[in-house]
Amino acid sequence: MPTREDLARARARLMGKVHRTPLVSSGALSERAGVELRFKCENLQRAGAFKARGATNAVFALDEDDAACGVCTHSSGNHGQALALAAQLRGIRSFVVMPADAPAVKKAAVLGYGAEVIECAPTLAARETTLAEIAERTGATFVHPYEDPRVIAGQASAAAEILEEDPEVDTVVVPVGGGGLFAGSSLTCRHLHPAVAVVGAEPSAVDDAAQSLRSGVHAPAPDGASTMADGLRTRLGTLAFQILRADAREVVTVEEEAIAEAMRFFWERTKLIIEPSAAVPVAAALAGTWRDRQKVAIVLSGGNVDLDHLPFGGGR
Amino acid sequence: MPTREDLARARARLMGKVHRTPLVSSGALSERAGVELRFKCENLQRAGAFKARGATNAVFALDEDDAACGVCTHSSGNHGQALALAAQLRGIRSFVVMPADAPAVKKAAVLGYGAEVIECAPTLAARETTLAEIAERTGATFVHPYEDPRVIAGQASAAAEILEEDPEVDTVVVPVGGGGLFAGSSLTCRHLHPAVAVVGAEPSAVDDAAQSLRSGVHAPAPDGASTMADGLRTRLGTLAFQILRADAREVVTVEEEAIAEAMRFFWERTKLIIEPSAAVPVAAALAGTWRDRQKVAIVLSGGNVDLDHLPFGGGR
Repeated sequence: MPTREDLARARARLMGKVHRTPLVSSGALSERAGVELRFKCENLQRAGAFKARGATNAVFALDEDDAACGVCTHSSGNHGQALALAAQLRGIRSFVVMPADAPAVKKAAVLGYGAEVIECAPTLAARETTLAEIAERTGATFVHPYEDPRVIAGQASAAAEILEEDPEVDTVVVPVGGGGLFAGSSLTCRHLHPAVAVVGAEPSAVDDAAQSLRSGVHAPAPDGASTMADGLRTRLGTLAFQILRADAREVVTVEEEAIAEAMRFFWERTKLIIEPSAAVPVAAALAGTWRDRQKVAIVLSGGNVDLDHLPFGGGR
Repeated sequence: MPTREDLARARARLMGKVHRTPLVSSGALSERAGVELRFKCENLQRAGAFKARGATNAVFALDEDDAACGVCTHSSGNHGQALALAAQLRGIRSFVVMPADAPAVKKAAVLGYGAEVIECAPTLAARETTLAEIAERTGATFVHPYEDPRVIAGQASAAAEILEEDPEVDTVVVPVGGGGLFAGSSLTCRHLHPAVAVVGAEPSAVDDAAQSLRSGVHAPAPDGASTMADGLRTRLGTLAFQILRADAREVVTVEEEAIAEAMRFFWERTKLIIEPSAAVPVAAALAGTWRDRQKVAIVLSGGNVDLDHLPFGGGR
């Protein structure tokens, strides 16, 4: 479990390598939410998502010998791009296993950061087998998207920046998938800002994190669950569950319709592109969930959307 | 024609009333353009477009007696919203004539800023008659979207902010419709930054400004012309033509396909929403038009898009 010192080391390591993203406000959003809102713009982060923080911390934490063999992961989403970018920054190789049916634009993005992409059948078994083969053959270090203390320590830096910039923030809200961002934010507040609440937001369709933290038992991934917030389909990770349970964190859930509506409202009013996953905490805020708080900061997880498949208008 | 003093007065008047928008960069865009690009984010301006500058300057330039009767205009676009917002800021009435078939979302936006909306038949004649009636009945001052020196002096402030913030910029590029922004930018450089080039960008489908400035004869509006850049369908104004001809400015043109492609690329890479009109100068830059310049600043006219009718993906 990352310590207070691990968080501090991660911050030092990330300096100059990832963006210190802006914290912005919107009168229209705050008014509808009934509370002052601030948005941490990880959609403007390098590679378009907060994942750059964790991946960069993990890559730069490697010693020279390990780094020389490169890094590998499996991802069809933001973590693959983030790891490829981090490896490029350090000047080492990276290998990203992707299902053969992943969108061409995602493959192109990973290749664009200089990674080697290895395609596999679109099953969990194929993904794990292929990754194991790569690791064996190349000696590359596997950097898991969230079951990794260095990744969690990296993600923790977003909340730290928020609370440094605006000490009036009393609540930090983050979307929850594997839980790396949620656990990292939780640790930041545990160690540095114990009075600040950290809350997760999750689609109702994949509410395993909400269930797990309510019951204290790590719930399985919902079967065949579907949500437009594709970054949040993942089951809450074991490491994240342990951290979040220890901190007694809670998760609110939102319906698909509210996610789409929040995403649209956010786009229209702020002119900032956020991905469906980032719209999940926004939807919860717009529903009035935090009316009784002073100032709520939402981490906008990323801005990587497929413009051919938008959840509104003719693009639906 | 606005003088150097008029520009200075406009800047003083706008202080604290409109945003000093950020000037941002993008490695991906600069690389494709073959030159360092900067973007003046008027999409993040109040009411979502640079039009807030001109309308606010015009409204706050009124003396008390005129102001007491309010202001009026005809517009189905950004100027209507901008004037309504400016009037609200000054605490006076505003009347906006809109065609009955204008999108409901645009009407809602104008109403949201406290304007009175008067619907008319969707013809030029009906629009002008209706506006004349309103002005007669109420005594409200007509604020034209671009045939007004105070409006042009207000629009001039965007280029002034760019060149104050980054003195290395040697070229300012703006989209051209009625020409208020283009003429204002031209005056800013004439009076304050004579070494800086000011260039217009226009859709090929409505290239009357390019024709006019090439031939020295004010060309008519192209007949039945259509472009996705709906803000630029307007004929170049008389006042703008005079200013721009005196400064010997030039206009480049771009095809519809390039506009859509530039808009998409910009959204994907910067996570900032720009309207099709703002994508016109971006398209010209991506085509390599300014490869031989040092640093090119593009004014992103606005971010008011109809998410139900996007020029790409399923939303087409």
